Amino acid sequence: MDTKKTSRRYSRRKFIQHSAGGVAGALVAGDALAADLRHGETPASWKVPGRGFSNYGQPRNSRDSPIRWISADRSVAGNGVSWTPLHQLEGTITPNGLHFERHHNGVPEVDPATWKMTVFGQVGKALVFDLNALHRYPMTSRIAFIECGGNSNSMWHPQPTQAPAGYQHGLVSCSEWTGVPLSILLREAGLKPDAKWLVADGLDAAGVSISIPIAKAMDDTIVGLYQNGEPVRPENGFPARLLVPGWEGIVNVKWLNSMQLSDRPLMSRFDTVSYTDLQKNGTAERFTFEMGVKSLITSPSPGQSLAEPGFYELSGLAWTGNGVITRVEVSADGGNTWAKAKLQDPVLDKALTRFRAPWHWNGARAILKSRAYDALGRVQPEREVLLQEKGSNHYYHYNAIISWSVDTDGSVHHVYA
Amino acid sequence: MDTKKTSRRYSRRKFIQHSAGGVAGALVAGDALAADLRHGETPASWKVPGRGFSNYGQPRNSRDSPIRWISADRSVAGNGVSWTPLHQLEGTITPNGLHFERHHNGVPEVDPATWKMTVFGQVGKALVFDLNALHRYPMTSRIAFIECGGNSNSMWHPQPTQAPAGYQHGLVSCSEWTGVPLSILLREAGLKPDAKWLVADGLDAAGVSISIPIAKAMDDTIVGLYQNGEPVRPENGFPARLLVPGWEGIVNVKWLNSMQLSDRPLMSRFDTVSYTDLQKNGTAERFTFEMGVKSLITSPSPGQSLAEPGFYELSGLAWTGNGVITRVEVSADGGNTWAKAKLQDPVLDKALTRFRAPWHWNGARAILKSRAYDALGRVQPEREVLLQEKGSNHYYHYNAIISWSVDTDGSVHHVYA
Repeated sequence: MDTKKTSRRYSRRKFIQHSAGGVAGALVAGDALAADLRHGETPASWKVPGRGFSNYGQPRNSRDSPIRWISADRSVAGNGVSWTPLHQLEGTITPNGLHFERHHNGVPEVDPATWKMTVFGQVGKALVFDLNALHRYPMTSRIAFIECGGNSNSMWHPQPTQAPAGYQHGLVSCSEWTGVPLSILLREAGLKPDAKWLVADGLDAAGVSISIPIAKAMDDTIVGLYQNGEPVRPENGFPARLLVPGWEGIVNVKWLNSMQLSDRPLMSRFDTVSYTDLQKNGTAERFTFEMGVKSLITSPSPGQSLAEPGFYELSGLAWTGNGVITRVEVSADGGNTWAKAKLQDPVLDKALTRFRAPWHWNGARAILKSRAYDALGRVQPEREVLLQEKGSNHYYHYNAIISWSVDTDGSVHHVYA
Repeated sequence: MDTKKTSRRYSRRKFIQHSAGGVAGALVAGDALAADLRHGETPASWKVPGRGFSNYGQPRNSRDSPIRWISADRSVAGNGVSWTPLHQLEGTITPNGLHFERHHNGVPEVDPATWKMTVFGQVGKALVFDLNALHRYPMTSRIAFIECGGNSNSMWHPQPTQAPAGYQHGLVSCSEWTGVPLSILLREAGLKPDAKWLVADGLDAAGVSISIPIAKAMDDTIVGLYQNGEPVRPENGFPARLLVPGWEGIVNVKWLNSMQLSDRPLMSRFDTVSYTDLQKNGTAERFTFEMGVKSLITSPSPGQSLAEPGFYELSGLAWTGNGVITRVEVSADGGNTWAKAKLQDPVLDKALTRFRAPWHWNGARAILKSRAYDALGRVQPEREVLLQEKGSNHYYHYNAIISWSVDTDGSVHHVYA
């Protein structure tokens, strides 16, 4: 790759000129053929009426339609994950049917007619909300990602795992969430000076219970009622879940049951045993909520293959738990040279950001990488740097640069490079 | 309604202070009860594991889950519409399963392996693209609405139709679309000077064929391949459809078959018989593509009812076929006084924009209205003004102010007021 060609000065017009007839070149037909296709052959679908209408639409039912892969622990019912197939998606919004799931004991059935949510503890007065009451409050919408703290944890393995990108890194999804700012409910309850932590628990059989510092609860946390326009689905927390933008998935408590204000964290097993970061010295760092700056190239990516040398658009996703993505760079030579990728507008705070960069594959082996920067000035480290810093005991919060090799036969693989 | 209270100076803090304990007031529990709820009763869902994982998620299966209503013409297979239930949704994104449908002869089955799209006519060389070829081109993403030109046409009736808001005005939906800018493909084909119109046709049995001025085709038109992240669904045009932002639905041709460049429009039946605007003098205005500036309050709206006097948030949608929404005003006194609504960020070009305004219902009959402004300085007219201007022969492009009455029993109805 001549990375100079993928620099900012690279224009689409230039691409068209360079591509010698363009990508469709091999398929170019004379006017006659084209005219034939239109006026000669009659498409079969013009001859019979199509399928009728539906109350709720479904994706195309095909072997190659995007699905979530399921990695579940058979010894504990409903414990596991399902992965967003990032390698089969484009843009930034995740359709609701493909939002990743991470459940500890399955998806509870919650009856919205009897559901209640309690706010109690270090407050002036405890409050109980039913769903109708909650719907009376002012709402806000925002596009935000949720990422499991354990996303990408196969990257700690000494050998690079071969799997499609979404099935290694797809415990992150992005939706437009709408709900009631938690700060409104907490202000109404009246926070006492000792209210330093909010302990939220869910209605799932695992009894997920997690402690959140009050500053974040009062900042941009939302009691989420709608996801991409429609009511939050059961598997995403119906009837109400927390959205804690930029913070690891576990604190975005689904199937909200109660929120207790306290002067201290609960030190539940989700605060202490899991979702903590074991350091090199054997001690565990707790309450490491914020997700780092991160990116990956989704196309091309492992399992895909390039048919022939020529033009390709590198397309990928970048995100950060704090602020906006300010820059993404891509490399096709294993990180020796980097070119700036184009960020798709609008670039939103704590949302997935799509980046794209033109690339001409010359047929030689190439190592593709992407490297994201955020508004705090942070940049993704190389894998060796992250391992050096964190040690090999780590399990959560992997955010190092991800590398794919494109081999001479066009096949794409995961490599540490 | 005291509209002064809903002015810009109205803060959420003020709302909380004014609302005498807030909306949850009636449900306030003592600390003891709250503690009971948490530590006494054990939710039933804590006792049994929940449901497991799924490859593709579904919404909650309930009588009150949002669905599209279907209005189909039984005499012609697959001719009709299904409506986005705007009155049951929040935010701005429409989930793919609820995107409105307007088909003239059903949804064709298209085999992606054999599908081809042709560009021919007044071009340097005709081009044929298969799906793999199309995927090789640079892509772009944007959030945009699509609105059927016939949306809201029940509003031309002399009596106000009583139906939920989405089933009168829900032939509009909003998605993040990703695809190849059409300008890239047309530049590659090489436009001849006579290429003034693009005639696109679809693979449906109705043979939808429509003429689009070349300037729009070269501006922001996209060959759409992905909708809200996943491949465009069959009912929305799989494998490829046009997205012609801000222009009436019919030109956003689904199941793309061919695009012919021509010095003149085709004058197909979709150019001439339908999707034209019959004027007062009996002549029809053709090629009225751009959708107007428009808005409606989705909550509260007909079929819903207010339980009691007190605080409510008015929530609704605004959009325009040209530029961005710059301002939305709401009235609760039939248009005598207006207050500025808050627009939800980000406000995007040719996308649905969510607006919200606080309202204190005093229990008396109220007439709710919303009025949107766009960047061109256009504003929605009152119904009488639109009728005066357009006459009663009109069928498409209804964009006048929409009014709901809130009666003393809290019920909401559609009124002309």
